[in-house]
Amino acid sequence: MKKLLAIGLALACIFGTLSANAADGYEMWLRYPPIEDRSLVKDYQRQFRTLVAPGEAAILNSAAEELERGLSDMLGEAPKRSDKLARRGSLVIGTPDSSELIADLGWEDRLAQQGPEGYLIETTRMGRRSVTVIASEGERGVLYGAFHLLRLMQTHQAVEDLAIAEAPKVQHRVVNHWDNLNRLVERGYAGLSLWDWGTLPQYDENPRYEDYARFNASLGINGTVINNVNADPRILTDQFLEKVAALAGVFRRYGIKTYLSINYDSPRAFGDLETSDPLDPKVQQWWKDRVAKVYEHIPDLGGFLVKADSEGQPGPQGYGRNHAEGANILAEALEPYGGVVFWRAFVYSPEQGDRFREAYDEFMPLDGKFKDNVILQIKNGPIDFQPREPFSPLFGALKDTNIMLELQVTQEYFGFSYHLAYMGTLFEEVLDTDTYAKGEGSTIGKLLGGEVFEYEQTGMAAVINPGTDRNWTGHPFVQSSWYAFGRLAWDYELSSEAIAEEWMRMTFTNDTGFLDPIGEVMAMSREAGVNYRSPLGLTHLYAQGHHYGPAPWHDKSGRPDWTATYYHRADEEGIGFDRTETGSNAIEQYHEPIAERFGDPEKIDEDYLLWFHHLGWDYEMDSGRTLWEELVHKYDKGVEQVRQMQAQWQDVKGLIDQQRYEHVKALLEIQLRDAIRWRDSSVAYFQSVNGLPLPEGSPEPEHSLEYYKKQEHRFYVPDPWHPKGDDRKVDY
Amino acid sequence: MKKLLAIGLALACIFGTLSANAADGYEMWLRYPPIEDRSLVKDYQRQFRTLVAPGEAAILNSAAEELERGLSDMLGEAPKRSDKLARRGSLVIGTPDSSELIADLGWEDRLAQQGPEGYLIETTRMGRRSVTVIASEGERGVLYGAFHLLRLMQTHQAVEDLAIAEAPKVQHRVVNHWDNLNRLVERGYAGLSLWDWGTLPQYDENPRYEDYARFNASLGINGTVINNVNADPRILTDQFLEKVAALAGVFRRYGIKTYLSINYDSPRAFGDLETSDPLDPKVQQWWKDRVAKVYEHIPDLGGFLVKADSEGQPGPQGYGRNHAEGANILAEALEPYGGVVFWRAFVYSPEQGDRFREAYDEFMPLDGKFKDNVILQIKNGPIDFQPREPFSPLFGALKDTNIMLELQVTQEYFGFSYHLAYMGTLFEEVLDTDTYAKGEGSTIGKLLGGEVFEYEQTGMAAVINPGTDRNWTGHPFVQSSWYAFGRLAWDYELSSEAIAEEWMRMTFTNDTGFLDPIGEVMAMSREAGVNYRSPLGLTHLYAQGHHYGPAPWHDKSGRPDWTATYYHRADEEGIGFDRTETGSNAIEQYHEPIAERFGDPEKIDEDYLLWFHHLGWDYEMDSGRTLWEELVHKYDKGVEQVRQMQAQWQDVKGLIDQQRYEHVKALLEIQLRDAIRWRDSSVAYFQSVNGLPLPEGSPEPEHSLEYYKKQEHRFYVPDPWHPKGDDRKVDY
Repeated sequence: MKKLLAIGLALACIFGTLSANAADGYEMWLRYPPIEDRSLVKDYQRQFRTLVAPGEAAILNSAAEELERGLSDMLGEAPKRSDKLARRGSLVIGTPDSSELIADLGWEDRLAQQGPEGYLIETTRMGRRSVTVIASEGERGVLYGAFHLLRLMQTHQAVEDLAIAEAPKVQHRVVNHWDNLNRLVERGYAGLSLWDWGTLPQYDENPRYEDYARFNASLGINGTVINNVNADPRILTDQFLEKVAALAGVFRRYGIKTYLSINYDSPRAFGDLETSDPLDPKVQQWWKDRVAKVYEHIPDLGGFLVKADSEGQPGPQGYGRNHAEGANILAEALEPYGGVVFWRAFVYSPEQGDRFREAYDEFMPLDGKFKDNVILQIKNGPIDFQPREPFSPLFGALKDTNIMLELQVTQEYFGFSYHLAYMGTLFEEVLDTDTYAKGEGSTIGKLLGGEVFEYEQTGMAAVINPGTDRNWTGHPFVQSSWYAFGRLAWDYELSSEAIAEEWMRMTFTNDTGFLDPIGEVMAMSREAGVNYRSPLGLTHLYAQGHHYGPAPWHDKSGRPDWTATYYHRADEEGIGFDRTETGSNAIEQYHEPIAERFGDPEKIDEDYLLWFHHLGWDYEMDSGRTLWEELVHKYDKGVEQVRQMQAQWQDVKGLIDQQRYEHVKALLEIQLRDAIRWRDSSVAYFQSVNGLPLPEGSPEPEHSLEYYKKQEHRFYVPDPWHPKGDDRKVDY
Repeated sequence: MKKLLAIGLALACIFGTLSANAADGYEMWLRYPPIEDRSLVKDYQRQFRTLVAPGEAAILNSAAEELERGLSDMLGEAPKRSDKLARRGSLVIGTPDSSELIADLGWEDRLAQQGPEGYLIETTRMGRRSVTVIASEGERGVLYGAFHLLRLMQTHQAVEDLAIAEAPKVQHRVVNHWDNLNRLVERGYAGLSLWDWGTLPQYDENPRYEDYARFNASLGINGTVINNVNADPRILTDQFLEKVAALAGVFRRYGIKTYLSINYDSPRAFGDLETSDPLDPKVQQWWKDRVAKVYEHIPDLGGFLVKADSEGQPGPQGYGRNHAEGANILAEALEPYGGVVFWRAFVYSPEQGDRFREAYDEFMPLDGKFKDNVILQIKNGPIDFQPREPFSPLFGALKDTNIMLELQVTQEYFGFSYHLAYMGTLFEEVLDTDTYAKGEGSTIGKLLGGEVFEYEQTGMAAVINPGTDRNWTGHPFVQSSWYAFGRLAWDYELSSEAIAEEWMRMTFTNDTGFLDPIGEVMAMSREAGVNYRSPLGLTHLYAQGHHYGPAPWHDKSGRPDWTATYYHRADEEGIGFDRTETGSNAIEQYHEPIAERFGDPEKIDEDYLLWFHHLGWDYEMDSGRTLWEELVHKYDKGVEQVRQMQAQWQDVKGLIDQQRYEHVKALLEIQLRDAIRWRDSSVAYFQSVNGLPLPEGSPEPEHSLEYYKKQEHRFYVPDPWHPKGDDRKVDY
C-alpha cells in the first residue's frame, strides 16, 4: 500500500512538474525531474539513502538543502537527514572543520591541494561502511561538490565508484549585470532588472534572489556585480547600501560575493567635494570614508567594478591623471577590507585613428603600475563583443598587471533574445586562442590560469542578462551561454560541445533524439550569426543605438567610429580595414608569429580577413571564388543555416514540453526573417557600392536597397532601454 | 487500490499546487485547489460527473475547457466529456443553436430576456434525468455562466438546486492598458507590458495571453484597450496591426473584443497628409482607409479610444474644431464595421482658473452632438483618480450623450504596487453616488444601467496594471481591485464587501480565520490611504512626476495646476479650495440638492470639505475639534490604520502559503514607513504655514520640514516610466 502511494506520488509529481514547472523554463538547468529509469533510480537510492550533513553554517546548509531537493525530486523520496552514518547508503558532506567524519578521513593534504573552492567526491569507506563523500577545505567547495553530484544524476551518470577531484583554475568567476537603478537593463532583453529596489530591503524573501544565487553557485560563480558599469552614483548612498546588503545576504549563503559598479565622479556627485581628482587627498579620504560605510553594510563586499573615461563616463583622465592613478586610489581604499578593483580596459576616443588600437596604446605604458588588488578587465576583442573578433592584443602583452577576461552572454550583437546563438563556441574560441606571449601554447585560457605569467590574481567575467522574464533570459537558449560561461570560468579546458550536451540534458531531456540534432543546432548557431551578419571579418554593420538590424550604409554619426562605413570601408574597388603597416598597423600589437600571420592576406584565417586587409572585390579566396562571391556565399550560407536550425528543431517536437518547444519554434521564425533581412540588406548595399552582379544561383534581394534603408527605422524592436530614442526616429 | 492511487494523486496535487503554483499568485482568482472537504467533493461529483458541451465554436470550447480544468483540479477527477446525457450527474452547456439538448428545453423567451451575454444556470430535468444546465442565447453567456458555476465551487457553495438568472446591466465592460509600444507601462508598477511586441505575431502561444483573457472573461469583461491613451501612431501601421491581430485572435476565444488607442494626429504622423483637421475631407478619407485596413486585420475590432487635446495630446482643437467634430469623423469611419469611439472627457488646460470645472464646461455645450457610436469616457472625479473625489458633475448632466465611467485599478495615487488599497470601496462609493439628475435615486450606477436616461449605449472602463510581474499586478491585493471592477461592471449593485470576500475565497482560502480579519483590512485600506495622504477633502499633494511621495510644499511647475499649493491653498489663516459662489463656483455644475449641500460647510460630508471650502484653521468640526486638530487626527488615524492592517496580517500567518504571506508582510512594512512619512511631511509642512501646535497626544514629526523636503527627491522609487527624469532630479 505504501508502495502504491509512492507510485501515485511519483506519477503525480511527473504530471505536476511537466504541467507547472518544467514548461516555463524558470528552473533553467537546475531541473530535477523524476527519473523514469527505475533501475537507475534504485542505484541512486542505494547510494544516497541518508544524508549526513552539518547544518549550521549557511553555505553548508545551502548544499544540504540542494541535495535534499534534488534527490527528493529525482528519486521521488527524500533522503533521511542524520548526523550519524547509516548502515548503508550514506552521503557525507562537509569540511574537516564542520564534520568529524570528514576530519577523520585524514584527507587534509589532498583537500589543501584542491583549495577551499575545490572538492573531492569519492566513494570510500568509513570503518566498515561504504559511503559517498563530498569534502572540501571550504564551505564553497562543499556546495560546488553538491551541485557536481546532482549534475551527474541529472545527466544520468553512474555514481557507484566516484573519484572526482576538482578545483577552479581562475580565482574570480564573476557575472556582470548592466542593470540600472530604475530597473531598466542596458542590453538586457529579458524584462526589468531582477533587483526590485522598491521592495528592498524589506522583501528579501523574493524567491528569485535565492534561485538566481543557486544558478550561479551551481556553476562555481563566486561573484556578482549587480549594477550597470554606466554607474549611477546613488548606488553608494546609505539608502541603496541598505538594499544591496539585503541582496548580499541572500547571495552570501551561496558563496557569492557582491560587487558594485561605481561612478568615478561620486565625490562630486554626492555634493561633498568640488572635484573627483584621484590625486587630491580630500578625494582619497572621501573614498576611504565611503568604502568604510560600504563595508559597514556589506562586510564581505567583493569590491568595485569601474568603467572610467569611456563612452562619456567620468574618470581620472578628466583631471589629467592616468588609469593607474585612477584605479589605485580605489584599490587603496578597498585594501584593508580585502576588496578588489575590476578596472575596465574598454576605452576609446573619437579622436584616434583606429579604435582597434586604443586600449592597448592606453594601457601598455601602465603595465606594472597598478596595485596588486587591481585587475584589468579586458573584453575578448579589441572592439566590442562583435560576432567574431580577433583577440585583444592586451592578452599576452600585459605581464605585470592582473588581467581578467570579459565576455558577453547577453546577445547585444546576436539578435537580442530573439535569436538562437550559443556562445559556448565563441568563448571556447577565445580561450583556446594562442597569444604566443611565451611561445606556442600561451593561450588566453592559460594566461588566465596563471600558467604563463605570474599574476597576483585573475578572473573571468561575463555580462549576463537575466531579468524578470519568467525564464530569466528571454530566449531559452541564452541560458546555455550563461551556463557555458560558468563552466568555462571553472575550467577553461572544457569543450563547448560537451558543455552544450550537459546543459541540454539538464535543461531539456536526456533523450538522444533531442540531444543529437539540437547539439548540432547549438554548435552551428554562432557561426550562422556571423555568416548572416558580418562574415569574413566584417564588423559592426548595425543600425546605431539598438544594435539589432543591419545598416551597412550607415555613415553619419556624432563620431566616425560609430558608423558602419568606418568599419567596412567598402568602395567600388574593394572592402576591409587595412590594419597592416600600410594602414593603422594595429597588427604590431600582437606577438609573432601572430603579427605576421594577421599581416598577410594569404596566411590569415579568412574568418578574420577583412579585420586587417582592404582587398579588391576580385581577390581570390581559398575556395577559388572571388572575395565578392565568397561574401555573398557566406551570407547565403548564414540564411541556410537558420533554415537548417529550424528544420532540426521541428524534428524534436514531442520530445520536450510543448511550451518551450513552441516558444523556440516561434523565435526561429523570427530569426529566419531577420537573417534574410540581414543578408538581403547587406547584399543590396554592397552591390550598390561595387556594381557587381550576384554569383550564379544566389537569389536577388527581395526588395530594393531603399526599402531596406527605410526598414532601419521603420522596423520595430521594442527596447525599453531606448524608449524615447526609438520613438523619435521612426517614420512610417 | 484505485482509491489509494487517487488519494495519492490528490495529495500530490495539493503538494504540487502549494509548492509550485498557488504560492506565486500567477493564477489570481482562478485557482482551483483540491477541495479538502470530502463530502463537498462528493456532492459536486454527483452533479458534474459528465460534461455535455458542444465543442466546435471557439468561445463554447473555452467554456468547456475551463469547466474541465476547474472540475478536475478541485475534485481530483476529470468530468467525462460526452455528447449525450449520462444517466446521472450531467452538466449540459450551450446555446439553443449549438445544442439540441438546450434547444429542446424551450427556454427561448427566458434566454432572450437575459440576452446573449446573460445566462441561466439551473438544476432541471431532461426527460427523466436530473441535470444542471448552463444556457444562453450567445456563446459569451455560456462562458460567463461556466465561470459563475466554478465560482460557486471555488467558494464552497451548494450546487444542488440552482436557479440562477444573470445578465449584465452595462454593455461595454472594458479594461484599459496604458502600455507603450516599447513595453513601458505608464503608471503600471508591475513589470513591462504583457504584450511582447518583439515576438508577435509569431509567438501568440505565450500562455500569458490566454490566461489574461481567462481572468477578464471570468468577470464578464468584454473589451480590452491594449495600448496607452497617450498613443503612439505606429499602432495603426501594418506591422503593428499584424501583431495586434495575433493578440485579438487569442482574446476572441474568450469573448473579448480588442480596442486600440489612437493618436489623433495619425494622418500627419504617417507622413500622408499635412493636416489632421477632422473637417478636411482628405483627413476623413484617410481615416476611412486606415479603418478599412484595420478591419482587414481584426474583423471584430471593438473600436478606438481617444485622448485628444489633453496633456499635450493632439486633437481637433488644434484645428479649431470641437470634440464632437473630432469624435464624429472617427465614428463615421468605424460605423460600417460596428465599431465605437470611446472619447475621453479628461481635458484641462493651464489657462483656466479651476481645473475642476473644465471637463463640464467643455462638454456640456456639446451634449447631443455626438454620433450614436461615440461614448464619452468620464473619470469618476473631476480631477484625476485622487484617493477621494466628489463625483464628476458630467454624470447626471449629459442627457443626450452616451456615457462611460472610467475608474483606476492601478494605484497611481495609492502608493503604486507597494501599498495595500482595495479599490472596491471607492468604486462602490462612486456607483452609489446620487446625482439627483432626475430626483433622488439617480445614482451613477443607475445612469450607467440606462435606468435614468435613455442612452444608446454605456460602459464602464478601468485602467488596470497587469504586467510581466509573475503575479500580474505587483502587490497581490491589486488583483482584488481588478476583480472588484469586473464584478461591479457586471452588476453595479454588488457590495464591495461581498466582492472582497468572494475574491479572498478564490484567491487565498475559504478559511474564515483568514476571511474575517483580512476582510476588515480590505474594507479599511482605501480609507487609510485617504487619511494618511489627503484627508478632509485635500487633494493632489504629491511630488510631481511620480505621484508617490508627499510634497504639499510643492509650488513651482510649468503650470499652476501641477503644483500642490494650487490645490490646498493653505496659508496662515486657513486651508481649502473655495469652489462656492465666492470662489470658482464649480458647485453650480451639480444638480440640487447636491449643489446646495456641497456649498455649505455645515451640510457637506466632511470627507469632501476642503474640496469646496477655504476655512479657518480653527473652524469647528462635527467632532468638536478644530479643523487643524481634525486634520492631524486624520493623519494620525491613517498611520494607526496601517498598523492595524499590519497586525491583522501577522495574525493570519500559516493560514495561507508562505510566499504570498511574506510578500504582503514586507509590503505592509513599506506601507507603514510611507504612511508615517506622509503624515509627518504633511503635519510639518502645514505647521510651518499655520504656526499652530500639535493637538495633545499627537506625536511630533520625526524630522524637520527641511528633511522631508529633501526626501522628495532623495527618496528613491524606481519607475522605469520616468527613468531619466528621476535620475536628473536626485541629490544626495
